[in-house]
Amino acid sequence: MAAMSTAVTWRRDLHAHPEVGFTEFRTASRAAGRLADLGWDIRTGTDAIDPAARLGPPDDDVLEAAFTAAAGDGSWAGDERFLGAMRGGLTAVVATLDTGRPGRHVALRADTDALPITESAEPGHPPTAAGFRSTREGAMHACGHDGHVGMAVELAERLTAAPPDGRVTILFQPAEEGGRGAAAMVPAGVVDDVDVLLAAHLGIGLHSGAVAAAVDGLLANTKYRATFHGRAAHAAMAPHEGRSALLAAAAATLAVHTAPPFPGHETRVAVGALHGGTVSNIVPDRATVLLETRADDGAVNDEVGSRVRAALEGAAATYGCTVDVEPIGSVTTATGDPSVSEAVARAAREGGVDVVVPTADLGVASDDATAFMRRVQSHGGVATYLAIGSDLAGPHHTPGFDVDEAVLGPGVDLLERAVRALTAR
Amino acid sequence: MAAMSTAVTWRRDLHAHPEVGFTEFRTASRAAGRLADLGWDIRTGTDAIDPAARLGPPDDDVLEAAFTAAAGDGSWAGDERFLGAMRGGLTAVVATLDTGRPGRHVALRADTDALPITESAEPGHPPTAAGFRSTREGAMHACGHDGHVGMAVELAERLTAAPPDGRVTILFQPAEEGGRGAAAMVPAGVVDDVDVLLAAHLGIGLHSGAVAAAVDGLLANTKYRATFHGRAAHAAMAPHEGRSALLAAAAATLAVHTAPPFPGHETRVAVGALHGGTVSNIVPDRATVLLETRADDGAVNDEVGSRVRAALEGAAATYGCTVDVEPIGSVTTATGDPSVSEAVARAAREGGVDVVVPTADLGVASDDATAFMRRVQSHGGVATYLAIGSDLAGPHHTPGFDVDEAVLGPGVDLLERAVRALTAR
Amino acid sequence: MAAMSTAVTWRRDLHAHPEVGFTEFRTASRAAGRLADLGWDIRTGTDAIDPAARLGPPDDDVLEAAFTAAAGDGSWAGDERFLGAMRGGLTAVVATLDTGRPGRHVALRADTDALPITESAEPGHPPTAAGFRSTREGAMHACGHDGHVGMAVELAERLTAAPPDGRVTILFQPAEEGGRGAAAMVPAGVVDDVDVLLAAHLGIGLHSGAVAAAVDGLLANTKYRATFHGRAAHAAMAPHEGRSALLAAAAATLAVHTAPPFPGHETRVAVGALHGGTVSNIVPDRATVLLETRADDGAVNDEVGSRVRAALEGAAATYGCTVDVEPIGSVTTATGDPSVSEAVARAAREGGVDVVVPTADLGVASDDATAFMRRVQSHGGVATYLAIGSDLAGPHHTPGFDVDEAVLGPGVDLLERAVRALTAR
Amino acid sequence: MAAMSTAVTWRRDLHAHPEVGFTEFRTASRAAGRLADLGWDIRTGTDAIDPAARLGPPDDDVLEAAFTAAAGDGSWAGDERFLGAMRGGLTAVVATLDTGRPGRHVALRADTDALPITESAEPGHPPTAAGFRSTREGAMHACGHDGHVGMAVELAERLTAAPPDGRVTILFQPAEEGGRGAAAMVPAGVVDDVDVLLAAHLGIGLHSGAVAAAVDGLLANTKYRATFHGRAAHAAMAPHEGRSALLAAAAATLAVHTAPPFPGHETRVAVGALHGGTVSNIVPDRATVLLETRADDGAVNDEVGSRVRAALEGAAATYGCTVDVEPIGSVTTATGDPSVSEAVARAAREGGVDVVVPTADLGVASDDATAFMRRVQSHGGVATYLAIGSDLAGPHHTPGFDVDEAVLGPGVDLLERAVRALTAR
Repeated sequence: MAAMSTAVTWRRDLHAHPEVGFTEFRTASRAAGRLADLGWDIRTGTDAIDPAARLGPPDDDVLEAAFTAAAGDGSWAGDERFLGAMRGGLTAVVATLDTGRPGRHVALRADTDALPITESAEPGHPPTAAGFRSTREGAMHACGHDGHVGMAVELAERLTAAPPDGRVTILFQPAEEGGRGAAAMVPAGVVDDVDVLLAAHLGIGLHSGAVAAAVDGLLANTKYRATFHGRAAHAAMAPHEGRSALLAAAAATLAVHTAPPFPGHETRVAVGALHGGTVSNIVPDRATVLLETRADDGAVNDEVGSRVRAALEGAAATYGCTVDVEPIGSVTTATGDPSVSEAVARAAREGGVDVVVPTADLGVASDDATAFMRRVQSHGGVATYLAIGSDLAGPHHTPGFDVDEAVLGPGVDLLERAVRALTAR
Repeated sequence: MAAMSTAVTWRRDLHAHPEVGFTEFRTASRAAGRLADLGWDIRTGTDAIDPAARLGPPDDDVLEAAFTAAAGDGSWAGDERFLGAMRGGLTAVVATLDTGRPGRHVALRADTDALPITESAEPGHPPTAAGFRSTREGAMHACGHDGHVGMAVELAERLTAAPPDGRVTILFQPAEEGGRGAAAMVPAGVVDDVDVLLAAHLGIGLHSGAVAAAVDGLLANTKYRATFHGRAAHAAMAPHEGRSALLAAAAATLAVHTAPPFPGHETRVAVGALHGGTVSNIVPDRATVLLETRADDGAVNDEVGSRVRAALEGAAATYGCTVDVEPIGSVTTATGDPSVSEAVARAAREGGVDVVVPTADLGVASDDATAFMRRVQSHGGVATYLAIGSDLAGPHHTPGFDVDEAVLGPGVDLLERAVRALTAR
Repeated sequence: MAAMSTAVTWRRDLHAHPEVGFTEFRTASRAAGRLADLGWDIRTGTDAIDPAARLGPPDDDVLEAAFTAAAGDGSWAGDERFLGAMRGGLTAVVATLDTGRPGRHVALRADTDALPITESAEPGHPPTAAGFRSTREGAMHACGHDGHVGMAVELAERLTAAPPDGRVTILFQPAEEGGRGAAAMVPAGVVDDVDVLLAAHLGIGLHSGAVAAAVDGLLANTKYRATFHGRAAHAAMAPHEGRSALLAAAAATLAVHTAPPFPGHETRVAVGALHGGTVSNIVPDRATVLLETRADDGAVNDEVGSRVRAALEGAAATYGCTVDVEPIGSVTTATGDPSVSEAVARAAREGGVDVVVPTADLGVASDDATAFMRRVQSHGGVATYLAIGSDLAGPHHTPGFDVDEAVLGPGVDLLERAVRALTAR
Repeated sequence: MAAMSTAVTWRRDLHAHPEVGFTEFRTASRAAGRLADLGWDIRTGTDAIDPAARLGPPDDDVLEAAFTAAAGDGSWAGDERFLGAMRGGLTAVVATLDTGRPGRHVALRADTDALPITESAEPGHPPTAAGFRSTREGAMHACGHDGHVGMAVELAERLTAAPPDGRVTILFQPAEEGGRGAAAMVPAGVVDDVDVLLAAHLGIGLHSGAVAAAVDGLLANTKYRATFHGRAAHAAMAPHEGRSALLAAAAATLAVHTAPPFPGHETRVAVGALHGGTVSNIVPDRATVLLETRADDGAVNDEVGSRVRAALEGAAATYGCTVDVEPIGSVTTATGDPSVSEAVARAAREGGVDVVVPTADLGVASDDATAFMRRVQSHGGVATYLAIGSDLAGPHHTPGFDVDEAVLGPGVDLLERAVRALTAR
């Protein structure tokens, strides 16, 4: 039996140790450590991300608890060389290999965060069966980012062993879920001198063996946290003195979901979470709602957003409450450049990929890699968002999700060919 | 300056160390320890409470974390002599002084639990000003139970020093809030040989200096946890495959609050908490609602409850979900006996209390001391629920609540006189 | 078999010809005609009511259609001598018998309007069985006002035949339902010289044979019409351009019903009607809601009203709509005078009534006779609201309602005795 | 100044006399009369429509009132030769010209009904300015059917004057709005021997001067009437005895509007009307909701429908009510035949039309002409749904709608050319 590849080894380890957005201390510091060992230049902390530009970071105590876990011993320990700079959730890593040879600067985005989902414990679920199920209840790599990091690390090893032209940067990005990390790395200047930006995603509708050289239909997406403020009271002795933030939040939840379709556009609006109150006999004075809007057009997304705000504010007023509405994630749309996607398609075909889709229409997905794409394009660079097909054990963002490990090796092959081709002038 | 009384000293210490229902490890073990030191007979653990009869105990990990804190060192440490028996939330304590002299067996209920409220940090809030504000965020003695325990301990000291006739028992009851503790102590037999049951409460509408010898209007009360089950899905990619438990719970919350008044009866129904979902882009497959019903008549309370169930089930069906409705607390009504309340009123007047209210109408309060009262009355005993007036820094169950410490001494005087009179044959 | 009394004959005729508020053209003009024939002085039209002070009159076309029906031939014809002055809904009649002898001026209120309910067609329903069921679908005397008018006419006949002292006035008041008529008659000065005001109601909780000399618990009551304005659009082709007034009204309906109880007070709030939209595929740009608030205290009623307004306005804003909130009925509280109720009780006992209740607590009823009571009391007069018990075929305001005709004769006896006693000085 | 064409004359007269679905007595009988005068064979009443197959006909009294108006004198009078057979809402007319020459049988659908909308009275609204605004408040030709009938009558005149080959039938169809008329004419056999079916619509997104030879995207559409049944009670005296059908209907309205999108499909769901209750102080025991679902696929439309039913039933149960859900309109999808649309396109080009769209994608419209199309196709015939562009004064189904009269003449030209070409073998 052959040894497992770096991509598979890393992804299994990460799968067992998932870290949600801005708490990727172990994941990011270990990736930084490995690439530092390979001789890549490493930027992290405030050199890789603008702390103030992060939307919706976790509370300080959550960040500190996660940091403490990674700063300790045992299987959750991170790489102490890089942990310090990351404290407080500055978990971006920018690793660069400068070959010194002429050529273009190609950057690959690898997102590092997991989702707040408890992984399936079904015996037949592949990570359970193979012994690398998440060891943290309530967190899970349910979107394949473990595979993205695994492929990136193996790619770095191969490029170190046989350097291409120009420069290569790997952007280990935190908090892709929710659209919160890329927009905060951009103002740190991390792609300001990048000529070609690649963002690759596993799965997203393509079967194992297929590759899409470009992806259409990345939606604009805004996430909001709405905090309703009412007035507490004893629910039996003085209900008339209370103003239930929970009633306001409940009415708002129904109202948000009544947003109409916009003919000619794909739109989405949904409340994903509502939390308010502690016990049954106190009128809750606080309730929090998490929701998001999406649209295939930024202006339509803004219009949906303005309706959502009106609904939230109206519902608050209906129940004598107030509401603070705060964007906690924002993803723009972006369009790839044919020159890059054609190069990717060529690389795929040369690598023996059978099914090469020029452009896949994903319908309704969002990815904040679009923030990198737009910045690179703004200074004359080019970009594509590509998909590496993978049969899935279950849908994205569900407890039964898992990628097909057999696609990781061919995926690294594809990325390696593409990088070599794109750096060459 | 005079030294602080036992009642004040204890209540300040407890105020700073609040423990919510069934986690009163420190409070209960320390009370048990002090009365054991005084020579009282102590029953705790399964001798004082029937574990299976507890409604709505916390999850095991919550119980274990609280136990661990009390089993450790420092200010949160409990009395290790009694902690072991309490593990798992068996935090009832029954302490008895048998004088050996003829006389009746009088029991006093002292409830021990705090509420899940974060205490006011305003500089003018008395506990903040005097340095005994709660040291645990999210927990607070906001209903005066700290004072109840303080008065009970001082009463025990006085009775030990100068024993009355007959027997005296103090019932340190967990989880009064929510109506979960008394009903579980009754099947352990703790009041089966009690002749006279006294339950005293601070505040509840009476000003400092006043005493009510009996209280009317204790409502029947049932608390429910409703858990909605839907189907998770990616909110943007496959919203049609999801069934939002959150929408169901939100609609149910509104519906529950539309329950009509019942002319001729006091009724209450309220949702106090709703929790569902984690992130903005997953259709939540689970949402939990905490609610309660109250009525001045058990049959009406049942009727309100049946409507609430219909509303919960209907709302679940409306959104393609299901719901489990589980009672997690239940308080019955009870009526006191004039023979006891007259003795209490006499004791008050003899003690120089200026304002003695024969019977106060509380309107809409509930207290599971009624479970003790009914059991004692069922075997021929008598009971009363009395109120010791206290000016309050803020309403019951709110962050600014605090009792007037000046009433604790006179309160112990009243209880002592009443116990001595009632034990005497 | 004895001939039917005037009270029964009139009430059966009126029962078969019910007219809702401000359209009582037939009822009022026939009563005016009969009392004119008896020699009473008649005021009607603007001499009896201030048109501008009417809250919530029907639309002009409704008033005109009802007038036209009464101005025609056949069973719906009114008395043409008085119809002209009533045109446009000025259907108040003030009939006075001035005996010329010394004595006080006693006024009796008799309300004339029916309700917009379709009467039961069950064979066993007494009016159906006896052949005097309502001949107008959608209108019904379901609160006994037909009996009030019948008793008043017979009383007038008896007083004409054997005049008492002083003066007697009968106030035939339109639009008691909704609290819209009395408040508009007061500014016309119709009770400015009245010494004693009697308002009598059949039923309201008392059984046949009983009389209550006074009634407590008349609630303040305000009725509102809320009109939501949105924006029409084709529901399939351009739903995003619409703003559904119906969604706003639906959310408002739920919100209004979540108003909390006010401990220590009886309060009510309810939406009784919602109308919006015409077909299934147009976003409705208009929806109308009828609702009312009640409370046993005017200030509490105002507070409930202000919450209702907030709920209506908040719900409108939630769905991008606006709302106009218009009071269309308003009833104040009033308290009777013991001197009058004692006289009524005496009259009842002298007349052989077995059960004489000094003061009945009706709980939650409202009657705008309180406007007359307050005005009479404001200039030094006295008043009472009395109840003449009646077994009922069904509850007030339901299709199966009917009064017990056997109580009408004794009712007139009581009123006659009371009037004779109260006019005598 | 030239005389107005038949199409314009007729359409103005019909515009001023709009009749909603199944009450088109004047419109249908006059059209039948004119074509009878031209010598066409006329079928109407039960020869043209199956009474039992009509979905959602108006109540009998509404039908009878409309019939009475058309049976009278004056401007609303219909043609008495045909009225009798139409009584009760059998307002379909099938008029056939059999030339006796060989050729195919071509049928043209002309829908006759108006909408329950009050027309704009703005001075600048073309029908107002030109003096043919609707003379019936609450009814309006707001979808161009007046123009359809006008064009059909002028076409009949032209074909009579110069007969084509084969046979021509004009289907004057009632109740297109709501999808209720065509499905009831089909079982009467009216298209069983038709070879070619044409359905033409004015406007629907195309500008004046353009013609679409075929239309895609006709959605499946189902309309429902949901009647909620509760229990009446006095809202203040016995609210607990009531079950508000209005609360149930309001909650259902919100719930229906929260139906999710179905990725990959166009769907619609909307409540267009809600009516319940009469006065503010009676708990409404009945409320009616009109709603519709649409989808570009019949199975998806059924799935949306099943969710809507669950929502309606769940909401009823939530408030202790029941609900009857009744389909009152149903439109299927249909696809045209290229052979017909190509003939139409050719006719258009030959007639000098500048913009000939082969197939227009209307997105989300529905038309029950699809019932005729499917039946004709089922026995081997062919069909197309074509659009005759028209600039509009306001959107379809709004008070400011009006067609551009200048397109009616060219529209008749197009239909005449197409009929002559298609009948010729």
